[in-house]
Amino acid sequence: MAGPLITLTTDFGLSDHCVGVMKGVILGIAPAARIVDITHEVNAYEIAEGAFLIAETYRYFPLKTIHVVVVDPGVGTARRPILVEAAGQRFLAPDNGVLSMVYAREKQWKAREVTASRYFLQPVSSTFHGRDIFAPVAGHLAKGVPPARFGKLIEDAWRTDFLTVQRLGKRNWVGRILKIDRFGNLITNLRAEDFPDVRSRPFEVTVGAEKVVLPARTFADCPPGELALVAGSSGFFEVVANQASAAQRLGVGVGAPVEIMVF
Amino acid sequence: MAGPLITLTTDFGLSDHCVGVMKGVILGIAPAARIVDITHEVNAYEIAEGAFLIAETYRYFPLKTIHVVVVDPGVGTARRPILVEAAGQRFLAPDNGVLSMVYAREKQWKAREVTASRYFLQPVSSTFHGRDIFAPVAGHLAKGVPPARFGKLIEDAWRTDFLTVQRLGKRNWVGRILKIDRFGNLITNLRAEDFPDVRSRPFEVTVGAEKVVLPARTFADCPPGELALVAGSSGFFEVVANQASAAQRLGVGVGAPVEIMVF
Amino acid sequence: MAGPLITLTTDFGLSDHCVGVMKGVILGIAPAARIVDITHEVNAYEIAEGAFLIAETYRYFPLKTIHVVVVDPGVGTARRPILVEAAGQRFLAPDNGVLSMVYAREKQWKAREVTASRYFLQPVSSTFHGRDIFAPVAGHLAKGVPPARFGKLIEDAWRTDFLTVQRLGKRNWVGRILKIDRFGNLITNLRAEDFPDVRSRPFEVTVGAEKVVLPARTFADCPPGELALVAGSSGFFEVVANQASAAQRLGVGVGAPVEIMVF
Repeated sequence: MAGPLITLTTDFGLSDHCVGVMKGVILGIAPAARIVDITHEVNAYEIAEGAFLIAETYRYFPLKTIHVVVVDPGVGTARRPILVEAAGQRFLAPDNGVLSMVYAREKQWKAREVTASRYFLQPVSSTFHGRDIFAPVAGHLAKGVPPARFGKLIEDAWRTDFLTVQRLGKRNWVGRILKIDRFGNLITNLRAEDFPDVRSRPFEVTVGAEKVVLPARTFADCPPGELALVAGSSGFFEVVANQASAAQRLGVGVGAPVEIMVF
Repeated sequence: MAGPLITLTTDFGLSDHCVGVMKGVILGIAPAARIVDITHEVNAYEIAEGAFLIAETYRYFPLKTIHVVVVDPGVGTARRPILVEAAGQRFLAPDNGVLSMVYAREKQWKAREVTASRYFLQPVSSTFHGRDIFAPVAGHLAKGVPPARFGKLIEDAWRTDFLTVQRLGKRNWVGRILKIDRFGNLITNLRAEDFPDVRSRPFEVTVGAEKVVLPARTFADCPPGELALVAGSSGFFEVVANQASAAQRLGVGVGAPVEIMVF
Repeated sequence: MAGPLITLTTDFGLSDHCVGVMKGVILGIAPAARIVDITHEVNAYEIAEGAFLIAETYRYFPLKTIHVVVVDPGVGTARRPILVEAAGQRFLAPDNGVLSMVYAREKQWKAREVTASRYFLQPVSSTFHGRDIFAPVAGHLAKGVPPARFGKLIEDAWRTDFLTVQRLGKRNWVGRILKIDRFGNLITNLRAEDFPDVRSRPFEVTVGAEKVVLPARTFADCPPGELALVAGSSGFFEVVANQASAAQRLGVGVGAPVEIMVF
């Protein structure tokens, strides 16, 4: 029998002791747990990026996996720690919207405020709830403590709509950049399936000071030196430059607007 | 039964094959071992940083965990590999002071020089003792070889006092920066519990060319654009800038002096 | 019984969700698999670097380990996914030469084109075969599906000779830089054992605009501020600068020529 799975997604980086400490705490409580890093390189305090990353990842994990997401600019303030059940999996995170894209994907989900301080590492510091709250609660969940023991259901979990696409006119819409990947590809919040005409008709995507008019099926299709639009593996349109960084060329970051016009 | 735990803390970075090779060697000897990365991003050759990181981490791990710490500017020279037992855990490291802050935390500890070359990977290279000495010894320890089999007790393990705080006058002391974390917070070697007056009286902390006079309980308490002093999750004072890098603003690095004056 | 071992070597970086997604897919298929990261920081699209890294690593892993290597500039094009058996281990990679240095080390190996799409994640995207092909095939292999079930043997696996050293004259040869490690050491493709005279006779190694004439046994032997030639832990000569970056000083990158003259 393989041990329970716990994933970690944080903005703690890999050069500090924080991630190692969280793993020690989890393994001290649930020795059989298997811990998988999603990423610890979420840009510091970037809730939108954390929201995108966990939403793209959780559904590839087995049922019952516990996902711990700590992107937490408000650590030590009144923001609540929450435990969310969705898609047969569990999520632990600060209630700051970082699970919004999970809520958006799932019809059914329920959230609890985590209040059962007997499961916390005492004394709870005001700066490192990853260690003092999220890791030990994940450990106890992994060991089989039922979700209801950690706190009561809430109806008002914080939700930010990172997926809003605004219609500007008959043929044009504006969304935004959700994530810049390692290759400098710009992942937008425009779903390829919402723009089926892009495959058959001319289009124009405006990002920064440039316009993208070429469709491409793969990164390699994109002519060297040119920008192109790809339906990425997440289902969103991505602006890419073959073997080069579109982000660097366009000088844009997460949150920047992306306008699409289909003729 | 969960397998034995081995943690790794190195300055090897994550872009080379070194860490993967060490894991292969360990798993070849102790197939059931579970390996946890603390960090491989210790700044190259920075013994002080490695000392801080392992000292902040080990106590969160279960008893019997084996901690391998390879920050080793003297690899291939006469410096000894050592095996230290402390706090019910085991540590493998070069004898260059990188375990000093573990010694400082623990009343009781004993160190052995690792000399039993039958447990090494032969031939031992002169540049990669992580692979040839520390990984295989960790594997054999994990499999149950008792510590005494690896070498004799020594009394003169190298110790550097990274925690010295000098008293400059009646009301002022000078310590130093131990670590700059991912967010640019400056972790000092000034223990918050040694300066209880800071909570109730005016103080002044001088780092680089600036003075910090604001106390804060959490990062979020710190007014945007201001520097503040926080009692960090490690128990040390940290100089922080809310959602910004204090290190960048002050232009200081690990080892830089930090003067505190309490009025 | 410890679960089957799977290693991952990619150029996906650690800031995206790609690596986490691959692990989720693997663990969904082979819950007992144990996944070890070699590195995800191969420079984007650098097949030569990936080839070097996996070739330096696999032989330290136990028999039956499955190595997944995804450095794949041609993802979505006609290049084949392949499954290679060598040295009692298995390798999954795109057929673009990234396993060339494994072939060079092993007398006996066989390659199959992976065509059994019933083991893929459907629909297969055109941009993320790590998720849709390599991860699920690794999972099924780990669960015990025999290699022959994934596709037929091929005789024409793509092979690039990254190890060629050209003889320029009676006493001089030219090779190239295979990898720049974290410390800025330049790992060349010149095998120390092919140049035994270097230990006893004057030599001159030319890289960028400088000449290296000092031999060193360890990094610490190298006088501060000087460049030296070390027989590295991989068996290749490395150009190093003690506690400094040779790469930065010389301004050279992977692929740059390295000339050696032995007098």
